[in-house]
Amino acid sequence: MPQGQPSVVPQDGLTTRQRRNRPLVMVHTGTGKGKSTAAFGLALRAWNQGWPVGVFQFVKSAKWKVGEERALRVLGASGEGGSVAWHKMGEGWSWVQRDIAESEDAAREGWEQVKRDLSAETYRLYVLDEFAYPLHWGWIDTDEVVSVLRERPGTQHVVITGRNAPQPLLDFADLVTEMGKVKHPMDAGQKGQKGIEW
Amino acid sequence: MPQGQPSVVPQDGLTTRQRRNRPLVMVHTGTGKGKSTAAFGLALRAWNQGWPVGVFQFVKSAKWKVGEERALRVLGASGEGGSVAWHKMGEGWSWVQRDIAESEDAAREGWEQVKRDLSAETYRLYVLDEFAYPLHWGWIDTDEVVSVLRERPGTQHVVITGRNAPQPLLDFADLVTEMGKVKHPMDAGQKGQKGIEW
Repeated sequence: MPQGQPSVVPQDGLTTRQRRNRPLVMVHTGTGKGKSTAAFGLALRAWNQGWPVGVFQFVKSAKWKVGEERALRVLGASGEGGSVAWHKMGEGWSWVQRDIAESEDAAREGWEQVKRDLSAETYRLYVLDEFAYPLHWGWIDTDEVVSVLRERPGTQHVVITGRNAPQPLLDFADLVTEMGKVKHPMDAGQKGQKGIEW
Repeated sequence: MPQGQPSVVPQDGLTTRQRRNRPLVMVHTGTGKGKSTAAFGLALRAWNQGWPVGVFQFVKSAKWKVGEERALRVLGASGEGGSVAWHKMGEGWSWVQRDIAESEDAAREGWEQVKRDLSAETYRLYVLDEFAYPLHWGWIDTDEVVSVLRERPGTQHVVITGRNAPQPLLDFADLVTEMGKVKHPMDAGQKGQKGIEW
């Protein structure tokens, strides 16, 4: 990213400093790879600033993101940067879980926890990993999410990942990146491999 | 990413295990955010597997990616995962540097180092950050890069980031993700901020 100049200077009565430090809602969506990995990369920057980081995994399977989890836990415990808290919604379920009702309840519980933490200003960066799925599926109400995010106090940045992020969330977000799949080894018959997919 | 089944089983005479462990060349390109952050997220997975990771920064400025660098250095030194080596091409120059010739030489020197390391199988994951720029600018010959990558020995994964990755590299790569900018705060007059942009 070039550092660059903003293309427009808004007439919002804010100073550059106030505008610069405005808390952001970021969405990584699309069918390509890199949505979650980029969010965890962002967590490295937050950690480096000494910010408390909260990760909420809304979709889980046995081997996904174990690398990111271990790395962020080691960093959080290193005492050199910010703290890291890692939350897994409904340990043991996954999006291929047959018992949908249980996943739906777990996702809602996760969102309730996020709301409590936003209200208490527990973290400065929230990674709501795969959160777009329960929104897309209608398990959690997108309008409520936008409303809670709009009203969140203090300086709390939120990054949300997952395919099919609902349009009202995209409209509200400050930053949206669409990860598009151009080419993937699975299309050529290759399965996922350790160190790359997990 | 769903774990999924490959959509095609190739007739290449390889076993699933051989195919699964095939070394990959990955490219993150496009105008959106997340190209580099996703590559550093990938480095977390490699670190977790105990792989030696080599990062080569082909574009540098004073405050870019300091968070990722510090995090990966702390992880590499933790003794819990793989090692991390961080190379900055021509310390002190940046892409806004006026002395283009110096940058061009530094980029070429960086590529020579990458070639030596690939030949010696020094790392198992190479992050060639912003490497697409010197290719796009013609400072380094894309055909030579493709040829070196094609002939690299052993199991060495390579991820290349940057806008405008040349077509022959995209054609050769196993995995290409296009990060598309849908919405960015700079468009609304906001400048970059710590913890988010660096």
